[in-house]
Amino acid sequence: MSATAKLQVTILGSGTSQGVPMIGCTCPVCRSSDPRDKRTRSSIFLRTPEANLLVDTTPELRVQALREALDRVDAVLFTHAHADHIMGFDDLRRFCDLRGGALPIYGSPETLQGLERIFGYAFNPRKTVPGYVHVTAHPVVGPFELGGLTITPMTVPHGAVQTTGFLFAQHGRRLLAYLSDCQTLPAEAAELMRGVEVLIIDGLRDLPHPTHLNVQGAIEAARLIEAKQTYLTHQTHDKKHADRERDLPPGVGVVYDGMQLEFELK
Amino acid sequence: MSATAKLQVTILGSGTSQGVPMIGCTCPVCRSSDPRDKRTRSSIFLRTPEANLLVDTTPELRVQALREALDRVDAVLFTHAHADHIMGFDDLRRFCDLRGGALPIYGSPETLQGLERIFGYAFNPRKTVPGYVHVTAHPVVGPFELGGLTITPMTVPHGAVQTTGFLFAQHGRRLLAYLSDCQTLPAEAAELMRGVEVLIIDGLRDLPHPTHLNVQGAIEAARLIEAKQTYLTHQTHDKKHADRERDLPPGVGVVYDGMQLEFELK
Repeated sequence: MSATAKLQVTILGSGTSQGVPMIGCTCPVCRSSDPRDKRTRSSIFLRTPEANLLVDTTPELRVQALREALDRVDAVLFTHAHADHIMGFDDLRRFCDLRGGALPIYGSPETLQGLERIFGYAFNPRKTVPGYVHVTAHPVVGPFELGGLTITPMTVPHGAVQTTGFLFAQHGRRLLAYLSDCQTLPAEAAELMRGVEVLIIDGLRDLPHPTHLNVQGAIEAARLIEAKQTYLTHQTHDKKHADRERDLPPGVGVVYDGMQLEFELK
Repeated sequence: MSATAKLQVTILGSGTSQGVPMIGCTCPVCRSSDPRDKRTRSSIFLRTPEANLLVDTTPELRVQALREALDRVDAVLFTHAHADHIMGFDDLRRFCDLRGGALPIYGSPETLQGLERIFGYAFNPRKTVPGYVHVTAHPVVGPFELGGLTITPMTVPHGAVQTTGFLFAQHGRRLLAYLSDCQTLPAEAAELMRGVEVLIIDGLRDLPHPTHLNVQGAIEAARLIEAKQTYLTHQTHDKKHADRERDLPPGVGVVYDGMQLEFELK
């Protein structure tokens, strides 16, 4: 058996800020028995032969990590500092313990500032205490290398804030683009992702939303990008997974919690 | 059937700051198949004929609320502002929506200040947006009434901070005392709880800990309080639930996630 190097991607969460089912909701989607309709908050995990990368730390990070038996994280990338993407930050303590040291985190200067405002105790390299979370902050201002991948940040608008999307590439091959929260697709970001193998993009719901792309907007963005395969994420309880997928054009699907994607690396 | 008024208490979470199982841990407790060895972060929910009260908003609040089918919260009490007790705060948004307005929250001035520092957007009564969390802050400086209960705060030391324990009473009957995080038991707090029907108290593990009571310390505190029944909470992966309970003296047990307690009200 040849040991082909792979990038393995696990969808840790695929839901909007309130998750699916929503607390106290009795709609058919929230009462669905399809496991794909159980959505924790949006986050992905990437594994290459060189490193394990986590994107965002949702409030349910512990639940997601246990479900997927994660036992190593080498770096964390943050899209933005909204509650549904960061409130599991303190649970990184376990990954610091397992690693035996501080965890490198990557995000825009604004995102890192937001994290430090809340979790300041994790950012003090002179006060490291075993059992607590400690990070080294790497402000993202351009492409960087991690785990044998070239990661290109893309700034996209999301209401009052800008979020960071990430393009993961190897030797110029655009493997995966992840845009969890975006309202519109700037031309510059579309150009960076053009022809990407897999695009995972915010496609909140059918109705327009002031800070998210809706399904139609996400499909249009995917066409502009010429993504070979597109998956919507950050889903509400708008529609059941199966019904949503049935309505989508060829080459467009929806991610779900626990879904795996695989890319061959050179 | 007589409709006896009751105080129903649900243990939402019974675990320490990292929960049980811990991420990436393969010890026998973390691999236990006993559902009582699955511990989300410590929190309780109280239901009286007049109100539903939540104590703390752990990172897993959404998971706990779905598990217990919670669909109404009338007020939230906070013990302190450490990550494992507050990082689910933003998920209160659903309870605001279901209620149709801001949610009253109670805590020490320091705890409320800690919450406002992180979740400032929830504390602005002039900027209420549907779908977002909004609270009215009630600093706790002495006994207060909620849901037909008299709630007496008790300040106890927990490392560098003070936490607030809560005594729930009706017409002078001391029904339940909840002390999730305490290092030692001040005499004044012991006196307030004396003879309480049920005491739920921090009893982290066998070994001493710099900021928590260990099992022996919790047992001694319970004797001093003369609690009729005591349950340990905030458990680590030190011992399996069944093994821990086997070792405890009569009148002392361990709470677990989903456990229910009931008190008749007058």
